[in-house]
Amino acid sequence: MAAADAAPARPGLGIIAGAGPVPRRLIQACRDAGRPLCVVAFEGQTDPETVEDVPHLWTRLGAAGEILDFLRAQQVGELVLAGPIKRPSLSEVRPDWRAARFFARIGKRAFSDDGLLGSIVRALEEEEGFRVVGLDQLLGGGPLRPGPLGRHRPDALAQADIRRGVEVARAVGRLDIGQAVVVQQGTVLGVEAIEGTDALLARCAGLALSGPGGVLVKLSKPQQERRVDLPTVGRDTVAGAASAGLRGLAVEARGTLIVDRAETVAAADAAGLFLVAVDSGDPDPAP
Amino acid sequence: MAAADAAPARPGLGIIAGAGPVPRRLIQACRDAGRPLCVVAFEGQTDPETVEDVPHLWTRLGAAGEILDFLRAQQVGELVLAGPIKRPSLSEVRPDWRAARFFARIGKRAFSDDGLLGSIVRALEEEEGFRVVGLDQLLGGGPLRPGPLGRHRPDALAQADIRRGVEVARAVGRLDIGQAVVVQQGTVLGVEAIEGTDALLARCAGLALSGPGGVLVKLSKPQQERRVDLPTVGRDTVAGAASAGLRGLAVEARGTLIVDRAETVAAADAAGLFLVAVDSGDPDPAP
Repeated sequence: MAAADAAPARPGLGIIAGAGPVPRRLIQACRDAGRPLCVVAFEGQTDPETVEDVPHLWTRLGAAGEILDFLRAQQVGELVLAGPIKRPSLSEVRPDWRAARFFARIGKRAFSDDGLLGSIVRALEEEEGFRVVGLDQLLGGGPLRPGPLGRHRPDALAQADIRRGVEVARAVGRLDIGQAVVVQQGTVLGVEAIEGTDALLARCAGLALSGPGGVLVKLSKPQQERRVDLPTVGRDTVAGAASAGLRGLAVEARGTLIVDRAETVAAADAAGLFLVAVDSGDPDPAP
Repeated sequence: MAAADAAPARPGLGIIAGAGPVPRRLIQACRDAGRPLCVVAFEGQTDPETVEDVPHLWTRLGAAGEILDFLRAQQVGELVLAGPIKRPSLSEVRPDWRAARFFARIGKRAFSDDGLLGSIVRALEEEEGFRVVGLDQLLGGGPLRPGPLGRHRPDALAQADIRRGVEVARAVGRLDIGQAVVVQQGTVLGVEAIEGTDALLARCAGLALSGPGGVLVKLSKPQQERRVDLPTVGRDTVAGAASAGLRGLAVEARGTLIVDRAETVAAADAAGLFLVAVDSGDPDPAP
């Protein structure tokens, strides 16, 4: 309740910016909507072009006091995490005293991605009075319903690969390893860990079996805080899948951000790839 | 019993040769022991130098009739599978009628690595009268007991990474994905699927976090036929782990082939890496 009460006095949006193009897209969307914003950028993580021409702070992940002071000075009421933040080693974090106090409190949960980021989100809401919103609420294009998004449809073999991919992705997600897997003809070609989906697709290009191409399946980790690390796909993902010889992508209904959805669907259509949203409990895309 | 009865009349060893240097090592070991042998080599899989100067057949995986005729002509009584055979797509197999009959009988189990190779082993024993022996019985250097093999020991952080690696490797093995994982400071840097351990290590070199280096954990898949796909490490694995900035390797006690064990342990010692055998149910290496 404190967060909701505080919002009218601090209407700005604070963007906690990870790597890649997503923070920049969000900045553009906010500008188009006339919404005030500022950006917290992290050395070694955020792309420098992300913060051109916007109020921003360059800092490090451990500088909790500096970050909070900046957000308050910028009249921020809502926060959003945009773009992947690769987990740094503890020595890179160099916690200030507020961060150290926080680490001490959350203890060993800090050693899991989801534990750490989820704990930070809860602390920002409950203790600091910000409202943390999901990236899909700001950039989403509406809820993602199960079924095909574009022109192409998975055939029976691709549907079997999707089922196997969902089984494997859920299992590796439960172990807090990664979100994405590539399956071809029932064989798991690759599993994403910290290298990211683009690197996974790049290496699968060299691993493909002959015969019908495989599928990329990307799901959220079952226990993850979706406001923190929403599975994201876009045109780059479609291009990577096409280069790897895949026949399509399956993403999680409701739990996926498709960046520039119309363009991404058009890219899949043009490349001859299917793009389907699946319920992770029921992987058969509805016709 | 048929296999044991038949053995005296057909004393030769048939080596079903996959990729890499292991088949060549086995040929040398047999020659040193004066044992007659022949090699079945597969196009696109076996290294051509493997079959220099030995009786051999170049063939394809689906040519069951040709392979059996060759083994009988060579008076083979025992068979061993040496070196990784990457699973081909069904179109590459082009089964002859004996292979087709076999595929028809085992049905969808053929679509899992372990199911297919395990079924082939059982058929070779029960129906064809060969005795299939484990590679470790011929090349092993004795049973691998839990504990460190070389001079170096994992510290507490490395032991925690080994425990996490065992947990993850068992789970991905149970899903029939792969045998090896790399863990650093509790984070899974990479999971092996069909790319193999050397490729996994090569990409982890670019993914390492700063701070203390990670560990490679390599275990057999719980359900796998160990005579078919024994987890194997050697000097190349040690060199790859060193290049990736790892601090050591953990392999499965009893369930791992260490090629050229003395040289491999010496390489780990020289590189400053630990090499420990762990019980996959009890990952703490005994002191």
